Amino acid sequence: MIVTDASERVRHRVRALGFADVVVDTAAEAVATADLVIACVPVGAQGLVAAEIGPALKPGAIVSDVGSVKAAVVRDMAPHLPAHVQFVPAHPVAGTENSGPDAGFAELFEGRWTILTPPDGSDPLAVRQVATYWEQLGAKVEVMTPEHHDLVLAITSHLPHLIAYNIVGTADDLAAVTKSEVIKFSAGGFRDFTRIAASDPTMWRDVFLANREAVLEMLGRFTEDLAYLQRAIRWGEGDKLFDLFTRTRAIRRSIIESGQETAAPDFGRRASPARERVPVPRPYGAGE
Amino acid sequence: MIVTDASERVRHRVRALGFADVVVDTAAEAVATADLVIACVPVGAQGLVAAEIGPALKPGAIVSDVGSVKAAVVRDMAPHLPAHVQFVPAHPVAGTENSGPDAGFAELFEGRWTILTPPDGSDPLAVRQVATYWEQLGAKVEVMTPEHHDLVLAITSHLPHLIAYNIVGTADDLAAVTKSEVIKFSAGGFRDFTRIAASDPTMWRDVFLANREAVLEMLGRFTEDLAYLQRAIRWGEGDKLFDLFTRTRAIRRSIIESGQETAAPDFGRRASPARERVPVPRPYGAGE
Repeated sequence: MIVTDASERVRHRVRALGFADVVVDTAAEAVATADLVIACVPVGAQGLVAAEIGPALKPGAIVSDVGSVKAAVVRDMAPHLPAHVQFVPAHPVAGTENSGPDAGFAELFEGRWTILTPPDGSDPLAVRQVATYWEQLGAKVEVMTPEHHDLVLAITSHLPHLIAYNIVGTADDLAAVTKSEVIKFSAGGFRDFTRIAASDPTMWRDVFLANREAVLEMLGRFTEDLAYLQRAIRWGEGDKLFDLFTRTRAIRRSIIESGQETAAPDFGRRASPARERVPVPRPYGAGE
Repeated sequence: MIVTDASERVRHRVRALGFADVVVDTAAEAVATADLVIACVPVGAQGLVAAEIGPALKPGAIVSDVGSVKAAVVRDMAPHLPAHVQFVPAHPVAGTENSGPDAGFAELFEGRWTILTPPDGSDPLAVRQVATYWEQLGAKVEVMTPEHHDLVLAITSHLPHLIAYNIVGTADDLAAVTKSEVIKFSAGGFRDFTRIAASDPTMWRDVFLANREAVLEMLGRFTEDLAYLQRAIRWGEGDKLFDLFTRTRAIRRSIIESGQETAAPDFGRRASPARERVPVPRPYGAGE
C-alpha cells in the first residue's frame, strides 16, 4: 500500500506508525503504479486531487474515494479522470470524531455499511472489486445513485452534525449560564451532542457546502417539526409530546437490533472519571 | 431502606432484585417512620405524592426528590408538606435512557453532580445531610436557586432531549428515505441522538411542561442560531461554518478534561455487532 498526504507532518506520522508499505510526497507519485486509488480528502478538495492524479493514472486503474457527499464528488472528479480508468465512488458510513493517521483502528468498518455510487455504464467488475475491498474490511455494501445517497446521508449524518454543532454553539454563547455550568452538568444529555460537534471542521464545512440542497430540505422539515413541539410546549399539549416520545423509542430499538448501535445503556459509558482519565487525543485536522 | 411504587409490577420487581429492606404498597406507609424521604416520580406527579405523604411524615423528617425541574416541584410539593419537616429538593444530573428498578447500577452517580435547591431559611443541617447522602453515592454537590437550576438544565439537558426526540421524529416521517435506510446508515451520526430519544416519555413530557419558560427561551436561541447556519449554507459562506465548527471542539475537550465524559473515541463503542448482540432491555416506563 502506497500512502501520501498533503501535510508533511501527517506523512511523517504515517511512516512512524508503519501501516503503509511506502509513503511518497505527491499524489501523482502515489497513483502511478496503483491498481486501486482511494482519495481520502475533504469533499471540497476532491476535484483538485482528481486534477492532480488524472494524468498519472495507469490504464485499467480503479479510482474511488470515501467522501460523505457523492453527487458533488462525481461532478468534481469525473471530468479529470481519463477514459482508461474506472471511477467507483464510495462512502464508508463509519468513523469517529477523530481524524488523521492515529484515529484509525482495525475494527472501524466491521458491520458498518459502505455505499457505492457507480455512474451509469460502469464496469460491473470494477464495482465488484471495490465492493470486495470494503467487504474484506468487514463492511456490508449497498449500491445507490449519488442523488439518493445525498438525501439519505443528509438525514442520517449531515443534519445530526449540523444540529450538534449548533446546540454546542448556542450553549457556548449563553451569558445567564456559565461555561463552567454547561460543562459540569453536561451529563444531563448535552455531552452526547459534543462528540460529533468535535468532528473535523474542514471536512464538515465542505459537506454542508457540497450537499446544500438535501441538507436545506431536511433542515426545513426538522425546523417545521420543532415548531410543532415548541407550540405544544407553549400551549401545554402534553399528549402531542408523549406521542412523539413514545414513537422515537422504537427507532432506537430497531437500530440496536440491526447491529448498528450498542445495546449497553449510556453507550456503555460507565467508568468513573478517576479511573478513565487518559490523555485527550488532539486529532490531526485535515490539511494540516 | 423502605421502597414503594405506584405500580404493583415494579414493587414485585424491586422485591425480586432485593435492594430494598422493605417494599410497601403505599407512599403513606413508606414514609411513616422515615428520617429521609426521596420522591422519585415524574415531575408532574410530585404534587400528588406530596399531598399523599404530607400527613404521614414524622416530625423532623427531611423530604427530598430527584426531579429534573425544580421551580415547579417546589411550587407543587411545598404547600403539602407540614411545617415540622425540612424540604431539600435535589436533582442528581446522571442517568441513562433506561428507567425502572433494573436500570440502576452502583456507579451511576460516581463523579456526577447533584444540584440542591433548598428554599430560603432552610435548616443548614438538613441541607448538609442531603449533600452527604449524595456524596456517599460518589456524587459532587452544588447548591443553587430553583430558577437558576431550571435555566442551566434547560440548555444542558432539556433542549438536547427535545432536539433528539425531534430529529428522530423527522427521520421517521420521511417518505424519500426509508426507515430501513435510516437504520442502516445511522452510524453516520444519527444513532447518537437516538439514545436520549429513547428516554421515558412520561418523565420527559412532564419536564417540558414544567420548565416551559426556560425551555422556550433556550429553544428560541437555538433556532435563531440554526437560521444563521442555514443562511450560511444557502449562500455558501464556508467561513461562518468553519468558525463555529472549530469553536465547538474546545467545549468537548473541556467536558472530557472535567471528567464528565469519556475520552474514548466514539464513546468507546467498538465491539462488532456480532460479538455484542445482547437482548435489548425493555425498560419499565414510569407509571407502569
